[in-house]
Amino acid sequence: MAPVEEAKSSRRFNFSAGPAMLPDLVLDKIVEELGDYEGLGMSILEMGHRDAGGPVQQVLQEATDCVRHLLRVPANYAVIWQQGGAHGQFAAVPLNLLGDKTQADYVDTGVWSKRAMNEAGKFCTTRICAEVRERQGKAEVPPVSEWDLSDKSAYVHICANDTISGVEFLEDPDVGDRLLVADFTSTLLSRPVNISRYAALYCSSGKNLGPAGVCLVIVRRDLLDMALPRTPMILHWKASADTSPVASLVNTPPVFAIYACGHVLKGLRRSFGDCGTLDTVRQRVTRRADDVYKIIDESEGFYINKVSSSYRSQTTICFTFGRDAANQREWAGSITAKVKLTELEEAFMKEAKERGMNGLEGHPAFGGIRICLYNGLPDKAVDEAC
Amino acid sequence: MAPVEEAKSSRRFNFSAGPAMLPDLVLDKIVEELGDYEGLGMSILEMGHRDAGGPVQQVLQEATDCVRHLLRVPANYAVIWQQGGAHGQFAAVPLNLLGDKTQADYVDTGVWSKRAMNEAGKFCTTRICAEVRERQGKAEVPPVSEWDLSDKSAYVHICANDTISGVEFLEDPDVGDRLLVADFTSTLLSRPVNISRYAALYCSSGKNLGPAGVCLVIVRRDLLDMALPRTPMILHWKASADTSPVASLVNTPPVFAIYACGHVLKGLRRSFGDCGTLDTVRQRVTRRADDVYKIIDESEGFYINKVSSSYRSQTTICFTFGRDAANQREWAGSITAKVKLTELEEAFMKEAKERGMNGLEGHPAFGGIRICLYNGLPDKAVDEAC
Repeated sequence: MAPVEEAKSSRRFNFSAGPAMLPDLVLDKIVEELGDYEGLGMSILEMGHRDAGGPVQQVLQEATDCVRHLLRVPANYAVIWQQGGAHGQFAAVPLNLLGDKTQADYVDTGVWSKRAMNEAGKFCTTRICAEVRERQGKAEVPPVSEWDLSDKSAYVHICANDTISGVEFLEDPDVGDRLLVADFTSTLLSRPVNISRYAALYCSSGKNLGPAGVCLVIVRRDLLDMALPRTPMILHWKASADTSPVASLVNTPPVFAIYACGHVLKGLRRSFGDCGTLDTVRQRVTRRADDVYKIIDESEGFYINKVSSSYRSQTTICFTFGRDAANQREWAGSITAKVKLTELEEAFMKEAKERGMNGLEGHPAFGGIRICLYNGLPDKAVDEAC
Repeated sequence: MAPVEEAKSSRRFNFSAGPAMLPDLVLDKIVEELGDYEGLGMSILEMGHRDAGGPVQQVLQEATDCVRHLLRVPANYAVIWQQGGAHGQFAAVPLNLLGDKTQADYVDTGVWSKRAMNEAGKFCTTRICAEVRERQGKAEVPPVSEWDLSDKSAYVHICANDTISGVEFLEDPDVGDRLLVADFTSTLLSRPVNISRYAALYCSSGKNLGPAGVCLVIVRRDLLDMALPRTPMILHWKASADTSPVASLVNTPPVFAIYACGHVLKGLRRSFGDCGTLDTVRQRVTRRADDVYKIIDESEGFYINKVSSSYRSQTTICFTFGRDAANQREWAGSITAKVKLTELEEAFMKEAKERGMNGLEGHPAFGGIRICLYNGLPDKAVDEAC
């Protein structure tokens, strides 16, 4: 059973790193009811979040319930919605989890790990406890047993999928009793997640979750009392978790973003029925990624992807051309200037656009080609691209 | 010329403190183009903010241009869009403006001043330099000459309009060389503002500006180098101001909220033409508020509003009933528990609802009646209510 429907003929395919395509049914539903929510004579955009049990609180509750259901979130975890995107959480993680400690460990798998670490560096000492290494020309993450974890660190942070290096954790690492935190922005809802391996995980909208404007945070409840006194209210997990009658009402929530994400989540849930799981999504995700990697691997060095098959991103597939200078670029590094596209990259992009495929450019600072296969992208788009 | 059109017959009137009604033309336009933006085969929700000169950046630029035009923002001020609402700015203000100082002054005109002050208290010592006082049974703000301003304070903060006490600054205070900061969330776009009197001002969306999900910040550029090292990126004014080719791209912006606010702003601008000003809006706002206050003042004590005419809010009109206990409640205080409505309040609300008027409840923690006359509310609604 396909979790999303096929695209309408007038729709352009968007392979970009996000904001990503929305499933047609979701977009249609939003357009249909945005002017008048359930015949109430008002738009959901105009409704108060303080109306106890009213539409906005219902929308919030339903979206939260779907997250709990789809991701099998254990009862001892809080599910909250905050503003500020993943960048907000880059600060929120140390602010909420440092407690008495002053240090944190980061696994470096690319630009987004570094961004998270740089932001955390405002609040504590950060250490790289492991980083991507090259084995036989392919990038891989060392096994957890080789991570240099420090007892002085409050937590260890990973980026579950780096959209620029194309390195993804396809399994949830087991760090034992240490607190594992993960940025799931570009991969949540692409596979089942073993939530109980994490102290906290977060996912900014804009990719699989729905349109940009809100960030989902799932955090173990017993960790909610550790926030530093200087934590801004809007990033304070416990404050968000403790509002009633529903969580996430410390201030006016970004209603539209939560509402739209709710439709994406409900759409996914409907596709599987109450007994289904994200295993079905993973099958689709894997099949589509395999189709693209197959072409790269069988291109005899024309296309080059430098990631080991155990860590190849299933949602953000990055490659360069073997026959020009672009493949000399590094995946990791700081985002500085916009790179110039090579001739081959330009030609590839031009041809793709003519075939209705958009957003294939790599990150402006790194170049190359990037094919993002988020859930909203119809299978037809992948088939045509291949 | 009316700045907003009249309501369609199926629309319910929403007098709540926000999220507020959107003008019909704005809502219609959003619904019309949300599925396919300008015939591009994609929704604006699906478009990348990194696409230089692309639709998202254009939307951001146009909204910013409208703010500059409508509010006559001087060139030495930056206009940025951040996430986290006014609560985010309650923290951002001290983080960005304290510099070497460790203290700030707050004018207390009600709950929102106190909320701003409490949040700032996480980062510095806060002082109440002035507060609402009673003169002949009416609340008023002392003149600036009587404010107890401290040279040790980095800035002085006001809430331009308190939605719970119904106390508004109808003129922009002149504090000389001191840095004045204002929370304009519930009153921006209701009158011209003398921007140059302020070091910074901010306005969360959800009222006049458009649907919830983004916060507008206007800040004097020469103050942008003062941010504390521990300022989270998402609240860092200079980081937001300095992105290119347009500001406010430190991370994925809340595209929908900015897009919708842009339509509200463009609608206002169209109503006046390039030579018009917010004086036209003020005339409408004053006329509508006068209509409501007239009924209160001529009710022979049946309705009670306790604010001096010089500080009566033009957008959030609060009153109680003289004949029951509700009028004994204080405006100011901390938001704690939900108050129980009195019988008269319940009867009033019931009758109003039957006449299609919604959202007249005071803040859940304070009770009473509150009539909010934001720009999106059609004149017809005010006429019918009166």
